[in-house]
Amino acid sequence: MNGAQALVKALTDSDVDVCFANPGTSEMHFVAALDTNPQMRCVLGLFEGVVTGAADGYARMAGKPAATLLHTGPGLANGLANIHNAKKARTPMVNIIGDHATYHRRFDAPLSADVEGIATPMSHWVGSADTADEVAAMGAAAIEASMVAPGQVASLILPADTAWNPTTKTAIADLTTVPAPDAPDERAIDTAAAAITSGAACTLVLGGAITQQRARLVGQLTAGTGTRVFCSTWAPRQESGAGRSPVARLQYFGELAAQQLDGTEHLIIIGGHPPITFFAYPDKPNELTPDGATVHQICEITGDIDGALEALVERSGAADAAPKILELDRPTLPDGELDATAVGRAMAHLMPDNAIVVNEAGTAGGGYQGALRGTPAFTLLALTGGSIGYGLPAATGAAIACPDRRVFAMQADGGGMYTVQALWTQAREGLDVTNVIFNNGKYAILQFEFDRVGAHSPGPKAMSMLDLTNPALDWVSLATGMGVPAERATTADEFNAALATSLATPGPSLIEVMI
Amino acid sequence: MNGAQALVKALTDSDVDVCFANPGTSEMHFVAALDTNPQMRCVLGLFEGVVTGAADGYARMAGKPAATLLHTGPGLANGLANIHNAKKARTPMVNIIGDHATYHRRFDAPLSADVEGIATPMSHWVGSADTADEVAAMGAAAIEASMVAPGQVASLILPADTAWNPTTKTAIADLTTVPAPDAPDERAIDTAAAAITSGAACTLVLGGAITQQRARLVGQLTAGTGTRVFCSTWAPRQESGAGRSPVARLQYFGELAAQQLDGTEHLIIIGGHPPITFFAYPDKPNELTPDGATVHQICEITGDIDGALEALVERSGAADAAPKILELDRPTLPDGELDATAVGRAMAHLMPDNAIVVNEAGTAGGGYQGALRGTPAFTLLALTGGSIGYGLPAATGAAIACPDRRVFAMQADGGGMYTVQALWTQAREGLDVTNVIFNNGKYAILQFEFDRVGAHSPGPKAMSMLDLTNPALDWVSLATGMGVPAERATTADEFNAALATSLATPGPSLIEVMI
Repeated sequence: MNGAQALVKALTDSDVDVCFANPGTSEMHFVAALDTNPQMRCVLGLFEGVVTGAADGYARMAGKPAATLLHTGPGLANGLANIHNAKKARTPMVNIIGDHATYHRRFDAPLSADVEGIATPMSHWVGSADTADEVAAMGAAAIEASMVAPGQVASLILPADTAWNPTTKTAIADLTTVPAPDAPDERAIDTAAAAITSGAACTLVLGGAITQQRARLVGQLTAGTGTRVFCSTWAPRQESGAGRSPVARLQYFGELAAQQLDGTEHLIIIGGHPPITFFAYPDKPNELTPDGATVHQICEITGDIDGALEALVERSGAADAAPKILELDRPTLPDGELDATAVGRAMAHLMPDNAIVVNEAGTAGGGYQGALRGTPAFTLLALTGGSIGYGLPAATGAAIACPDRRVFAMQADGGGMYTVQALWTQAREGLDVTNVIFNNGKYAILQFEFDRVGAHSPGPKAMSMLDLTNPALDWVSLATGMGVPAERATTADEFNAALATSLATPGPSLIEVMI
Repeated sequence: MNGAQALVKALTDSDVDVCFANPGTSEMHFVAALDTNPQMRCVLGLFEGVVTGAADGYARMAGKPAATLLHTGPGLANGLANIHNAKKARTPMVNIIGDHATYHRRFDAPLSADVEGIATPMSHWVGSADTADEVAAMGAAAIEASMVAPGQVASLILPADTAWNPTTKTAIADLTTVPAPDAPDERAIDTAAAAITSGAACTLVLGGAITQQRARLVGQLTAGTGTRVFCSTWAPRQESGAGRSPVARLQYFGELAAQQLDGTEHLIIIGGHPPITFFAYPDKPNELTPDGATVHQICEITGDIDGALEALVERSGAADAAPKILELDRPTLPDGELDATAVGRAMAHLMPDNAIVVNEAGTAGGGYQGALRGTPAFTLLALTGGSIGYGLPAATGAAIACPDRRVFAMQADGGGMYTVQALWTQAREGLDVTNVIFNNGKYAILQFEFDRVGAHSPGPKAMSMLDLTNPALDWVSLATGMGVPAERATTADEFNAALATSLATPGPSLIEVMI
């Protein structure tokens, strides 16, 4: 056994059995080890941003980390933006970053770089093996680190000689050693519950994922006490659709979020911090806590969110309240003009049970999501870290995690181009992904933001920086070039037909929505 | 004037008048400032790796930096791999990285990240403005830093409020303050010259770019003294073709490089360090200095390479020697089977004067380059940092720098997929780029390296990680989808015809070479 084999064994023995990879020469022993270990599934991406985004989507659905395999400092660098998203979403992730042999690091070789320095800003845990004997134990430690609640990014640097040298050392991650989530502030729960029962205007902002259990507790709190509840604009995962309790998200634009929070006397925070705007803007507030509101900080994202929420519901006297539950109420198919709402209606009409919807639709996101309330139950994944280029890879990873569920990648054109190579991996793996590209030919959000930041009306040069029509992107050609069947829809009828075909056909497809 | 306007003014007043950009909300004031400053040309890329690779290609040809405009930590992260290549090539580059407003940084906003930490591993100089008044001066300082010989990567972080706040402060880079290159070691020049004149077996390894002047001096040294001379495997820029003196590159594979250096008694180094292998391999040497050879270290890459080389030629008594000059000797057009050599022959037959050839052809690189010796003069740019995904963006930037020269992007399929979005920018800007994609359907270099690292014959799972045929990439579709006309060539005749069409047609085109 060599170090690479010991690492693959440590991963699979620890139930980490999917590896998204874009390897290079320094990772060849790891790649070779795949053939001696049938448990490990290795999924190739043609760009590292695909690899890391897929690992994020996978882990959000699987509830356990995937490994990634990245090639030295530049390979890691290419994957960083989606590692950033995973870090903000607190997704468990184990990055294996091959590096030069330990004795080659002191030279200024072309690919030599400060791998640890590159990994650190985007990782919760960074380790580097120095010998083959250490590799398995460090791999197990990385897995344990990744499972610290609610999830962490662990990056393990694997110098080539630690991969090829012999070892007999094995290891298995011991998740019983992973620390429990931080205890919530009991006093804050008490004061929050007292505020709620006093009849004051209370708002709960709930961080983290919205599981079915949390949604139900939120529903009880709302039904039993009238407390307003919002989850984060970017909640990494939300159980939605029929049979679940609705949980509203805070709006992206600060003005709208401020309206949602308006009149709040007591702001209760579970699983995060008091809300802020995504960006700061000249002459606009960036802190969203209403003036004069009392903040009850119960726990941060690393805290026992379930326990805190349950205790708050209990102490607020809402434990027996009946939560609102969404009912199945499919709309009719749309006709006429094609817009984001029509896309949502067609989806809601046709969507199979238990789908996964990955949202990176940008300015089209609100329109289609608004139409999804009456669909069968589905899981929504969001762009938690705000770094575009997440949607297509995350959908790819989610489909690997959940082969029995239809995945929708709801993707804006601008962000879609960042990691367009994900389509190839979908074709290669035969994944049941329906990619819906909203082609509006621009960075539409920036046209909004241009004015909002006080830059006023863009001139022609500025406007050209926000425009994607010269030349127009042809997503049907792009998808076809990577082996994914594709259709363009310019009317609701065309979209309805293309969506029906996609859902009836195993494997990936792409629908270019001209809006 | 606001900070962003002050920065754009500082850039253009300092003769930095091209900005490759992929902006976001935090860069909107910079984008707005473009319309008040007609001197600045702003070129949009649909992914940051395109932006930074284009800035590298531009600066290698222009001899001065371009600016890049990147969106916060993740945007910078997406550009890092090509910044790495620029750093290794010592290309001057000025990165402007927008960030959250200073007073927004303390919050855990979705896009907040340690921008300085991300920039540092890949930059020679990192600065961050704290106020609008500082912005112009820091921009000028970044330009000065970028011009420290032979070139540096300077990264300036621009918090949004320093861009939008008012200022009256202007600045212009003062290149007279840039330190001169380090003086070479005169004693090492003397001992090297003594070794050369003694008749001992001497080899010069010359780092940095191979300018016409350097090539001529190398030619004199070889003609006058018999000294073997090699430039770096990855010399960032080399003047080649008819009318220039040939300078051989050290081979990529260590065994072949060792043969080139075999028998050397005196190893003379100008502009670098004693050669090493690209990677380390089990049971193979990674240092290439022949056993027993005396090393004469004259200067590093930051040294006065021209002065050192001139002095060495002079003191070796070769100043009057007539260098070998390559003559124009175009081959006939190839026919029959299409391979890399046939591609090179067709190029050599048809190539216009003064072309630029960007090489990221991987395993096809040797074949086509071997056929280019008799072509008209051309400039060769290489993948100096070894991070693939450089070719298409660098060709894009080179074409912006040299609108009167035909640019060839010689691109392997694997690396081409990393930054395929560059094709869109070529179409948008109407650049005269002939993109030649070598489609061999695999990471061929890894199939070589798999065995070389001692991983032995790959099993089916390992082999599948090196394979790009499931599904096959269709580069004609990919290019068409981004507005670049494309043809597929499966025979030499088809390639000849496609190349002739490309050269006769303004704007970009792509030829997919099936090998």
